[in-house]
Amino acid sequence: MDMSWKNIDYLRQGILNEDHLILARAITLVESTNPDDQKLSAALLSSLQVVSKKCKRLAISGSPGSGKSTFIEALGIRLVDSGNKVAVLAIDPSSQKTKGSILGDKTRMEQLGRMKNAFIRPSAAGNTLGGIAKATYASTILCEAAGFDYILIETVGVGQSEIAARYLSDFFILLLLPGAGDDLQGIKKGIMENIDLLFINKVENELKAKAKETQSSYKHALHMVPKRSDDWEVPVICGSALENSGIVETIELIESYFAKNKIQIETNKKGQASYWFNYLFVEKLQSHFYNLPNTKGKIDELNLQLNKGTISAFEASEELFQEIVL
Amino acid sequence: MDMSWKNIDYLRQGILNEDHLILARAITLVESTNPDDQKLSAALLSSLQVVSKKCKRLAISGSPGSGKSTFIEALGIRLVDSGNKVAVLAIDPSSQKTKGSILGDKTRMEQLGRMKNAFIRPSAAGNTLGGIAKATYASTILCEAAGFDYILIETVGVGQSEIAARYLSDFFILLLLPGAGDDLQGIKKGIMENIDLLFINKVENELKAKAKETQSSYKHALHMVPKRSDDWEVPVICGSALENSGIVETIELIESYFAKNKIQIETNKKGQASYWFNYLFVEKLQSHFYNLPNTKGKIDELNLQLNKGTISAFEASEELFQEIVL
Repeated sequence: MDMSWKNIDYLRQGILNEDHLILARAITLVESTNPDDQKLSAALLSSLQVVSKKCKRLAISGSPGSGKSTFIEALGIRLVDSGNKVAVLAIDPSSQKTKGSILGDKTRMEQLGRMKNAFIRPSAAGNTLGGIAKATYASTILCEAAGFDYILIETVGVGQSEIAARYLSDFFILLLLPGAGDDLQGIKKGIMENIDLLFINKVENELKAKAKETQSSYKHALHMVPKRSDDWEVPVICGSALENSGIVETIELIESYFAKNKIQIETNKKGQASYWFNYLFVEKLQSHFYNLPNTKGKIDELNLQLNKGTISAFEASEELFQEIVL
Repeated sequence: MDMSWKNIDYLRQGILNEDHLILARAITLVESTNPDDQKLSAALLSSLQVVSKKCKRLAISGSPGSGKSTFIEALGIRLVDSGNKVAVLAIDPSSQKTKGSILGDKTRMEQLGRMKNAFIRPSAAGNTLGGIAKATYASTILCEAAGFDYILIETVGVGQSEIAARYLSDFFILLLLPGAGDDLQGIKKGIMENIDLLFINKVENELKAKAKETQSSYKHALHMVPKRSDDWEVPVICGSALENSGIVETIELIESYFAKNKIQIETNKKGQASYWFNYLFVEKLQSHFYNLPNTKGKIDELNLQLNKGTISAFEASEELFQEIVL
């Protein structure tokens, strides 16, 4: 067999054999923005799509400093210890600017990273949040096929990436710190409605009393927003990932959510598939027409006129459309 | 002349005659998502595009409670009193959900609203932030043509709408409240780099000392982010829109910015035109292909297969593309 990392059969077989090295190569392929790679990637993903559906995909969000990595490591270790295979992925659009990436620091999640049944992957690079989220969605399909029971998706707290996480996860965990319950720690509009579990982290020693207050103000705030599921009262847990408290409780709650909300989860998955179907189609449309032989010349010509102010963006788009589509 | 609100010549002439009623009708036209209206709208906008370029477009942002309406009214009144024509527009994606809209409350900006040389327009409704921002961009072109010297664009502080405001304004003002300088009032990543002026509002009576502290912590924070223009040190003003303090100073600073940064502003405008050119083209592409006679049937068929799990979003998008584009 051709053992190239662009050979679909080789990659597919490697993934199904739960080979983490080959999985990592396949993720690199689905992250690629090269058109040829994308065709291979679509073929690979289609060949794997229907293999597995039992995987639980958790999104974990929280502001910088809320302890996301420590929490993910504590959760991951516990899950592996109970016999699960755990993959960790990330969505970090800020890596566009800094060229860094979360989970990129090799010293983070060291203990989890050494476990045989764990797989940790830094955030995909990408030019847009949508592109990064798409690559992460594709990675979740690969991880599902590679037999993982849990996928933990770290997102940074910059508003839109939490929304993006909705389109590729089943369960959304928000981390907060004790205190500052009065201004709800600047939780952005639209996040509160999307939370499935709230974990107040770093509740250690003298912070325990303060955390109780935070807990009740958030419980109160959660009553103010529409419920995502009739069957689910969003729990607010006090704990400390560092001291390993609240972790077992969190896992029990997650398992009870998945047991109780099977239909809701299936419905969400269908909605997600339709969302990505539309996203991928629009992306394909753009890339097709922008890459036609005469498009670039026409765009340059129109931009020249735009710069001179002799036409408007409205006319320019109409003219480009007439020229290359009709 | 046909005085219908869908007659381009009538609308164009009315706008150039600075008729506010006809301007309002034209804005309704450019806000419409009906394909026929959009064609008329593009024709109207193209016919007006090159008329005027002297208009100063200010974006005003800030969290709920920071006093945006009071600030805009104070600024607007002062500008009108100095002989300017002032239009007020708004971008409010949250009106999607609430079906309300900022500036919709008729009792707000009452004094400014009564002035002959002022024009106040509530936020466009729309299904997406992009759609709302596009309608607002089109409205700024209409307002420029109708002879306004200043356009004040109110945005709500929900992260992405401030970014959107960058694509349709020349100058970005952020409102803050005194105090809480230590956590930078939860200013979202990516906003700080985009500010041209910071106004600490509601600095009244006993808050003056506290505001000084806030002022210095923000001055410090602004030194930490890359400058948008070499010629511009972002000012941090303490004032009170309610008591009319800091308003004259703000206007002087705005005028000095426009005097000093002509080239930068022109460059930004060109970038904005290219941005909207691309945005409008992609929108046209989608709407064209989604509205082809056999598209809907094919999408329904593919969604059915997606729901059953027999194909992936990647395959579905490829199949739709093959069927309706190639």
